[in-house]
Amino acid sequence: MKQLTIQSSQRSYPIVMEAGLRFHVKKWLKKEYSSILVITDDKIADKYLQDVVSSLEGQHVYSYIVPAGEASKNMDQYYKLQTKAIESGLDRKSLIIALGGGVIGDLGGFVAATFMRGIDYIQMPTTILAHDSSVGGKVAINHESGKNLIGCFYPPAAVLYDTETLASLPYREIRSGYAEILKEGFISDIHLTEELLSLSLQQVTTAQLENHLEAGIKVKAAIVEDDERESGVRKYLNLGHTLGHALEARLGYGTVTHGEAVANGMLFALHVSEDMSGEELPFHELHHWMKINEYPVIDIEEKRIAELVKSMKADKKSVSGHIQMVLLNQVGEPTVANLHDSSVEAYIRTYIERMNKL
Amino acid sequence: MKQLTIQSSQRSYPIVMEAGLRFHVKKWLKKEYSSILVITDDKIADKYLQDVVSSLEGQHVYSYIVPAGEASKNMDQYYKLQTKAIESGLDRKSLIIALGGGVIGDLGGFVAATFMRGIDYIQMPTTILAHDSSVGGKVAINHESGKNLIGCFYPPAAVLYDTETLASLPYREIRSGYAEILKEGFISDIHLTEELLSLSLQQVTTAQLENHLEAGIKVKAAIVEDDERESGVRKYLNLGHTLGHALEARLGYGTVTHGEAVANGMLFALHVSEDMSGEELPFHELHHWMKINEYPVIDIEEKRIAELVKSMKADKKSVSGHIQMVLLNQVGEPTVANLHDSSVEAYIRTYIERMNKL
Repeated sequence: MKQLTIQSSQRSYPIVMEAGLRFHVKKWLKKEYSSILVITDDKIADKYLQDVVSSLEGQHVYSYIVPAGEASKNMDQYYKLQTKAIESGLDRKSLIIALGGGVIGDLGGFVAATFMRGIDYIQMPTTILAHDSSVGGKVAINHESGKNLIGCFYPPAAVLYDTETLASLPYREIRSGYAEILKEGFISDIHLTEELLSLSLQQVTTAQLENHLEAGIKVKAAIVEDDERESGVRKYLNLGHTLGHALEARLGYGTVTHGEAVANGMLFALHVSEDMSGEELPFHELHHWMKINEYPVIDIEEKRIAELVKSMKADKKSVSGHIQMVLLNQVGEPTVANLHDSSVEAYIRTYIERMNKL
Repeated sequence: MKQLTIQSSQRSYPIVMEAGLRFHVKKWLKKEYSSILVITDDKIADKYLQDVVSSLEGQHVYSYIVPAGEASKNMDQYYKLQTKAIESGLDRKSLIIALGGGVIGDLGGFVAATFMRGIDYIQMPTTILAHDSSVGGKVAINHESGKNLIGCFYPPAAVLYDTETLASLPYREIRSGYAEILKEGFISDIHLTEELLSLSLQQVTTAQLENHLEAGIKVKAAIVEDDERESGVRKYLNLGHTLGHALEARLGYGTVTHGEAVANGMLFALHVSEDMSGEELPFHELHHWMKINEYPVIDIEEKRIAELVKSMKADKKSVSGHIQMVLLNQVGEPTVANLHDSSVEAYIRTYIERMNKL
């Protein structure tokens, strides 16, 4: 078992990583709760819902299953969950457990944040990718115009990570999660970065995975403790996400995974960073890593540039019409740049040229 | 001009009361904002929207008008406002101004609290009643099953009260607002209570009104500073609201005003309080005050008792199936009681009998 504690402005909360944790969730409840609503999706429900519900024996436990996938992070599911919570008789002393990947964590967390002005919730991430979203208290749903546009900052009561749930992840999900761990390396730690860039993800052992997860969570934890509301250093966690989000939105959610989009976004960010800093950065190493680990290297078409830039500008990080990107002066030394859209457009062009020559 | 400062956990913010304040809102903006969205309703828009927009000359100002009335505090308007904010290009450095009564304040505040995980907002209350809801950071919308079930705690950047906007209030609105001021008297101050209970609202002068408003806001401010998230003393502000909310919901919003319902709820709370404390409380004085000031004294029918109790139990203050009521040991000394529904039902019966004898 590994355990960390996060100090947020409103409370401190534990992050626990343990194999088989789902069989004894009750042990980690720090309070008496009048009732508990477990929110999950239809893929996770088959595998783990019963284990979690059984581990809470003796409590008033309800569950609600949403369809798996990003499309469930919408207003309609949000309202249905509020209705379910009311109809189940949840009150201010109740608890929500979000059992699943990032979609479930964000959706369940936002329901908890706004049900009767906020009740406790516990994140039980079941993917590698969700190590990132489950820590730090960002909760949200999507608006039809963009991802995570409706949400708030609301820290969980705990993050309970049953590492056994990662064993059965499809390779594509492992890839998606490792992109965020690599991001955490890029913004903080040259050694972690080098170790990750030498990895073949097909051959990662459980022990390695747990160590990498822990390393990633530590980076994330230190940053969100320092800047919970993203006025400063927390922005660094957005490395690769400006173009990444735009690619996801333009290609359609589900066509690429979040991590695949972020990996492409990081490659672009390294390209821009090299130009701005004058330093050589591991652009080729990242490109190589993506290829051996079968990340799709996305071909950006000339005629799509304008709409990509528009999409990047609609990102909620943009301020006063400028596009905000996280760049690296060197590995472990991130910085935030606000770029004019014409300059981003020019960078996309040189990026396309560079990629064509590889 | 009168000014108070509230210290919330996240920030401190001013409450400013001044005649004609709407003509120089810009003076009270403490930051540069990239853009401003003014939210109001179709009744207030005709009177004051142009004044507010003009006072912000030189800024990027957008406005959005919702239909007046409680029905606008719903999910549909909430989503439309999010869409308006996105389409107007609001970003994390933008401001929302909620210009109107409690409905607009709660709705506009909840949009601000959850747009891109929270942006600044300013409350500009235009009713007496809204002195209560605009201070303290409670924001919410209604679920079809009950009032304010979806929302959060999110303090405003400022509360700007143009007392001129109160001059044109219809008598019924004055009545509605004074019920909340009287509540603030009941829970804190025998002298304020006595002064209010001797008032004929038809003859209140502007100077008196401003003093009473200030007194009410001071009570509210002291309480929310002490207990922002309603784990303790803030509950006292719910005096009269347990039955009050149930009456509003059962009679239909709009049939009685919020203050009229609360006045009836307080009368019932005094009835229960006298029994529980063994003290004589100003039950008859309140009843008399309601009559001379034309508050409807609501006749509760025997056959409606069960559904009223059910509605009181669905209130978000109820915990573990008990009904939470604020009672008085004496004027200025409130207490919280968790009552079994059978006991509330019995009290409603003795209340009906008592009222029939008056």
